Order: sequence, then C-alpha cells, then structure tokens
Amino acid sequence: MLTLFHSPLSSASRFIRLILGEYSINTQLIEEHEWARRHEFLALNPAGNVPVLLSEQEVPLSGAIVIYEYLDETHGSLRQEKKLFPENPLDRAEVRRLNDWFLNKFENEATRHIVRERIYKREIPLAIGGGAPNSQILRNARANILPHMNYLNWLCASRDWLVGFELSYADLAAAATISVLDFLGEIDWAQCPAAKDWYMRIKSRPSFRPLLTDRIRGIVASPHYADLDF
Amino acid sequence: MLTLFHSPLSSASRFIRLILGEYSINTQLIEEHEWARRHEFLALNPAGNVPVLLSEQEVPLSGAIVIYEYLDETHGSLRQEKKLFPENPLDRAEVRRLNDWFLNKFENEATRHIVRERIYKREIPLAIGGGAPNSQILRNARANILPHMNYLNWLCASRDWLVGFELSYADLAAAATISVLDFLGEIDWAQCPAAKDWYMRIKSRPSFRPLLTDRIRGIVASPHYADLDF
Repeated sequence: MLTLFHSPLSSASRFIRLILGEYSINTQLIEEHEWARRHEFLALNPAGNVPVLLSEQEVPLSGAIVIYEYLDETHGSLRQEKKLFPENPLDRAEVRRLNDWFLNKFENEATRHIVRERIYKREIPLAIGGGAPNSQILRNARANILPHMNYLNWLCASRDWLVGFELSYADLAAAATISVLDFLGEIDWAQCPAAKDWYMRIKSRPSFRPLLTDRIRGIVASPHYADLDF
Repeated sequence: MLTLFHSPLSSASRFIRLILGEYSINTQLIEEHEWARRHEFLALNPAGNVPVLLSEQEVPLSGAIVIYEYLDETHGSLRQEKKLFPENPLDRAEVRRLNDWFLNKFENEATRHIVRERIYKREIPLAIGGGAPNSQILRNARANILPHMNYLNWLCASRDWLVGFELSYADLAAAATISVLDFLGEIDWAQCPAAKDWYMRIKSRPSFRPLLTDRIRGIVASPHYADLDF
C-alpha cells in the first residue's frame, strides 16, 4: 500500500489526496507538521515539506509536482478515456502552468500565509515563531485572494473545466487550493459566480468527500464548507 | 522557429537554453526584464516571469517546468539513446525533485536575492524598489549557498551524474543555477571538489558555450567563469 505524509490544510497535500481518490488508490495517510521538522521526516524529504508519498518500493517521492507526474506515469494510463492529462502537448503544458499557478503562486501569495498566521502559529512554540497572528501579513495575504479568484472566475466563465473539455489535474490543483481557503471561510463566493458553479461540480465528486469530512483539531470549518449546494 | 523570452541571469532561463542546445533547436532569444512588467509580456504570461517559450504555433509556454516537460514530450523522443529523462518512473521522479530543488528552492533561498540585490537593483528605478543592495538580504542569501553546494557535492561524490548513469535534466537544472552564481563569483569551489569536477564536465558540453559567452551590460563575469579548466 502507498503511504502519504500530508497536512490537512496543505493545498499540495489535498491535490494529491484528490488524485489518489480519482484513481481509487487505497493509501495510508500520516499527518505531518512541517514546522516540527521531525528528523525521520527530513530523512525522507530534506526539503522538509509535505506531501511525501512512499511508493510501493518504499521510495519517497517529494512534492506535489513530482508525485502527480509519477502517479500519472504509473496509474494515469489505467483510466482509459478518463485520463487527467489531455493528449495534446500544448494542452498538457496549460495543465502544468495552472498547476504551478494554483499550487505555487496562489499558495505563496495568499493561502500559505493565511494558514500559517491563523492556524499553525497557535501550535508552533513561541521560540520558533509561534504566537498571535501578524495582522499585516494576514491583510496582505487576504488582499491577494481576490485577483486570483477573479482569474479563476474568468477561466471558469468560458468553459466547463479549466483546460480542454474534461476534468484535468488543473481542476484538482485549483480546487485543492480553494478548498483550504473555503474551509477557513476566506472566499467571497458572491464575487465569482462562475468559479462557484465550477467548484460545486468538483466538490460533488466522490474523490472530494474525504476532504469535506476532515476534522482539524481546534478548528471549526466555515458553515457552508461541506455543503454541496452552498 | 521557436522564440524564447529569457533573462541572462535567470537560472530557469539558462536551464531552458541548455535544453534547447542539447536538442540543437534553433531559437530566437529575446531578453526580458521581469521587473519592467512590460504589457505585451504580461499578455503572454500573466505570472510575469521568464522564461516564456513561443511554440511553433505561437502559443506561449510559461515557466521552466512547463517548458522542459513540453520540450521533452515534443523533442525528447528524437534523441534516441541520449534522452534527458531516465526510463524508470522512480528515476524520473528523482529528476523532477532535483529540478524543483535547484530551480525553485535554491533559487528562492539564495540565487534570486543575490541577482536582485547585486544586479537588478542597479537597473530598477528607485520608485519601484531599485537602489543600493540591502546587505542583510545579501548576507542571508550568501549564507544559504554553502548548504546547497554541500548537498550538490554529496550527490556528485557518489556518481558521475545526479540521477542514474547519464546526463539528465537534473544536471542541467543544477548547472544552470550554479552558473549564475559562478558568473557572479559567489561559489567557493575549494569547498566542493566533487561538484567542481561534475561542473567542469557540464561546462565543456557544446550546449553550455552560449552561456559562457553571454555578455551582460555593465557586469564583468568572475575571472574563471568561462574557463573550462578552473
């Protein structure tokens, strides 16, 4: 069986969980606190970040981009007509561009800071950076959400799925990121109706269900988080 | 013909130039200053960063990861036995992990800051962040070079190439990053003899020659930068 070291509020971890769900790959989940820099975890991934997937051969695969390309190469072809990568190299390039956009750019400009300030800093010892949220960082990160949501809304307004005519990795990457912010009640859905319609469709997929039932110690999800019709 | 929007001191741009050289793909180069946020360039890549490759169909491909996967899919199979990706999915995953390590992690922890403080801030107007280098940022970035070089040295000490038994994208990604720091004289080669031996081999490849003859306005390369035996 595969093992995934993940964190419930990590967009990259959620992206991999969604893919494992789409491929119906049974996986053991182990929750990892990146900030704790656990010795055994650093031995698996010297970069210290989640997700890390242990392959059947117990080889560690580190980082969302590495893991999804590996899962596509080893499991993607089994999905026959329901592949998560389009066939055309230019469409595949667009999927990869959007994966990077949502998992790295959106993450680094907004999500990561909001999760750290609102959630992790309550758990991190004071001596290594824990404590009260920094309101300036929170304000800057929140200001960055709207342009990203506008971009997503624009993409969703012109077609059913983000690239091509089928669900692809790009939809899962975007939904993973959005789901973290939605869990925390940080998304103003009234501003982006096309994105909302798209997100409702993704949220209804069986692969999404485990994310909606995540319970995170000491945190209450936003009221509509698990509603399929919100 | 393909067109590459690049910047001479961008590791990611150099990585793509090396691949284009290895594949002997004739490409028109256009130098782009990311910090200028040129309107026509943002229309090609809303993220605003180099490299951007215009495909034969004039479709823009943005970012090193997107571009090299595209070049591999469209040109890699033409190289027959001299492919830049190993066949085994686990080895391919290791190539992708190291690409991310050198092009993103090393870049964000060291190279990017050094290039910005030492070079770009002389060109950027004061009003948008130009001016004298911030010595604290420079000091922190420089302190991060050694652990990365130690890691590279450790990888190089156990084998000829970074992954498997042949040159791969991982070698080109690492060499691209190192070449920027070496141009600026920021690498203490005496500390990492195995990495030096590896770098000398990469530097001698024909694909590397255009990088060694880059002339960048107002900057003199470190004395040994273009020496194949340094």
